[in-house]
Amino acid sequence: MSRVYLDWNATTPLRPEARAAMVEAMDVAGNPSSVHAEGRAAKMAMERARERIAAALGAEGADVVFTSGATEAAAMVLAGCGMACAPVEHDAVKAWCETSLPVDRDGAVTIADPGRSALQLANSETGVIQDLPEGLAVSDLTQGFGKIPFAFNWLGVTAGFVSAHKLGGPKGIGALILKKGTDILARIRGGGQEQGRRAGTENLIGIAGFAAAAEAAQSDLEAGLWEEVAARRDALEARLAAVAPETIFVGKACKRLPNTICLLTSGWKGETQVMQMDLAGFAVSAGSACSSGKIRTSGTLQAMGYDDAQAQSAIRISISPALDEDQMNRFADAWESAYSRWRDRNG
Amino acid sequence: MSRVYLDWNATTPLRPEARAAMVEAMDVAGNPSSVHAEGRAAKMAMERARERIAAALGAEGADVVFTSGATEAAAMVLAGCGMACAPVEHDAVKAWCETSLPVDRDGAVTIADPGRSALQLANSETGVIQDLPEGLAVSDLTQGFGKIPFAFNWLGVTAGFVSAHKLGGPKGIGALILKKGTDILARIRGGGQEQGRRAGTENLIGIAGFAAAAEAAQSDLEAGLWEEVAARRDALEARLAAVAPETIFVGKACKRLPNTICLLTSGWKGETQVMQMDLAGFAVSAGSACSSGKIRTSGTLQAMGYDDAQAQSAIRISISPALDEDQMNRFADAWESAYSRWRDRNG
Repeated sequence: MSRVYLDWNATTPLRPEARAAMVEAMDVAGNPSSVHAEGRAAKMAMERARERIAAALGAEGADVVFTSGATEAAAMVLAGCGMACAPVEHDAVKAWCETSLPVDRDGAVTIADPGRSALQLANSETGVIQDLPEGLAVSDLTQGFGKIPFAFNWLGVTAGFVSAHKLGGPKGIGALILKKGTDILARIRGGGQEQGRRAGTENLIGIAGFAAAAEAAQSDLEAGLWEEVAARRDALEARLAAVAPETIFVGKACKRLPNTICLLTSGWKGETQVMQMDLAGFAVSAGSACSSGKIRTSGTLQAMGYDDAQAQSAIRISISPALDEDQMNRFADAWESAYSRWRDRNG
Repeated sequence: MSRVYLDWNATTPLRPEARAAMVEAMDVAGNPSSVHAEGRAAKMAMERARERIAAALGAEGADVVFTSGATEAAAMVLAGCGMACAPVEHDAVKAWCETSLPVDRDGAVTIADPGRSALQLANSETGVIQDLPEGLAVSDLTQGFGKIPFAFNWLGVTAGFVSAHKLGGPKGIGALILKKGTDILARIRGGGQEQGRRAGTENLIGIAGFAAAAEAAQSDLEAGLWEEVAARRDALEARLAAVAPETIFVGKACKRLPNTICLLTSGWKGETQVMQMDLAGFAVSAGSACSSGKIRTSGTLQAMGYDDAQAQSAIRISISPALDEDQMNRFADAWESAYSRWRDRNG
């Protein structure tokens, strides 16, 4: 029986469009900073990719700065800036901010001073979508990009960032998007690349894959793919709720990412569930993946007011757009059977 | 007539071994930080690549930290450290150091305090190879790696860095190599990746290409490929010298990279030569490529005591191991003909 991957928010498999674009880019031999024909060809390929990514983001005319991913981009606009954020942000944001903004039971963050604050568009663990206030300084758009419709130019934020591998692009490439002309201090220096904002020879193959993935993801979104995903997610939640009525689906009443389930079964460790599901052939996660294989109690859930027994029981099921009904049923059966065993032992 | 690429030190085409490894890595779907089977498979692929890169570098047992390239790695060990370097270093090093170390006419750098200094193994413009003093804090190994034999563990340096795209790997991936357990301050934070030294989901496809390229390059080096390259380079220099006896081959009397010619023809702008050669079908460069297409007077040549008319006349011809005699002759003919026209106008 083939495995079922339900950890889409951690990373996604490479889309065929991205793969083809990357293989094609393997033949681009020049350095984009070189002035000769080989260099100019590399530069042109890169700038075309940049425009396609800007278009997919609704960021035409904004500055798209290539980075090694969202984590680096976060450091570029947050390090040393003394901004405020809420405990629901990704560690890459919390690393540089004062984690002082209040969060309500539904995960909504209250912002007093948008120009000095960072707020994510969507949470990776719960899927909860925030209303971004006009004039917001920084927004982590990573989980929203490709799953929910937005245009950077209409968000009213100064800086945003995204990562290719969350929407079918390769790992190790992302972008910082800045309102045209926004000043930032380069953290990687020693070359004029990226208008002096980020030195270093650019990841051309990754950039090609990123552009192809972003365009394909945007086209899927416009075609309504994620509405079907949301319907499938809701069906899965209904099945699990019928089996285990005491479970909590975090953010169910809120605007959420269409593919994300954050499931609490108070007292049943999320870590245990992840291992049991893994053995049964299903990849789910407990909290964010980005902490080197360690599973910690979710800061997001604690900030929303869940107690330790609840927060530690969280598993995230983030479904793939390709998940079919059979796979969904197999997962529900496997979880149900593990749940019954746990119930019997703890009943 | 197909073009001839003579700008190997700027960047190299992707090696077939790297391409194959990257295409294979496109099927690795997990996030190396995830605990489930998909995540563990990704982690294992990454750690195998890390070991192969360490072996190619003679850095077994040292810490190999993946970065987006040498420029990022330089910032990780140099920013805020107040180290000294010479003006011959790459901009990525000079950006963070006091450029105070003396350079002699042959490009050799004198170091007073190795533990507070950075010194490159080989210069990108002239190819000049430095003797690294025992106890050196930081060395830019980028141009030497794959072209000349060395083992990190025998260099006596605390930190070194390299970039995959200089030896047939992809652009956008490199490594910082640290003596086991060396403390550094993470500049990109928010995840436990790379033992807490560099957060962000790793560039798995790039890493796979890097490992394959490093291994293949090392094997070529051991097989004596670059001795043949040096012989071809010397033959090309002899031809050019016969045509234009007043030209200077910088570093010719010194230990140099086997593929590099730095040619001065006082009064004839390097920029002009690069454009003329480009139109004639040959990619050469004037100075380092890494400055966003801008050509500036070489700080390296000025530091070696060349005057402005000499320094501004520099072109770098960095030949490919695959350059054949016919291509070499075509280039020599083209340069000779441009040189004669320039001579006639300025005679």
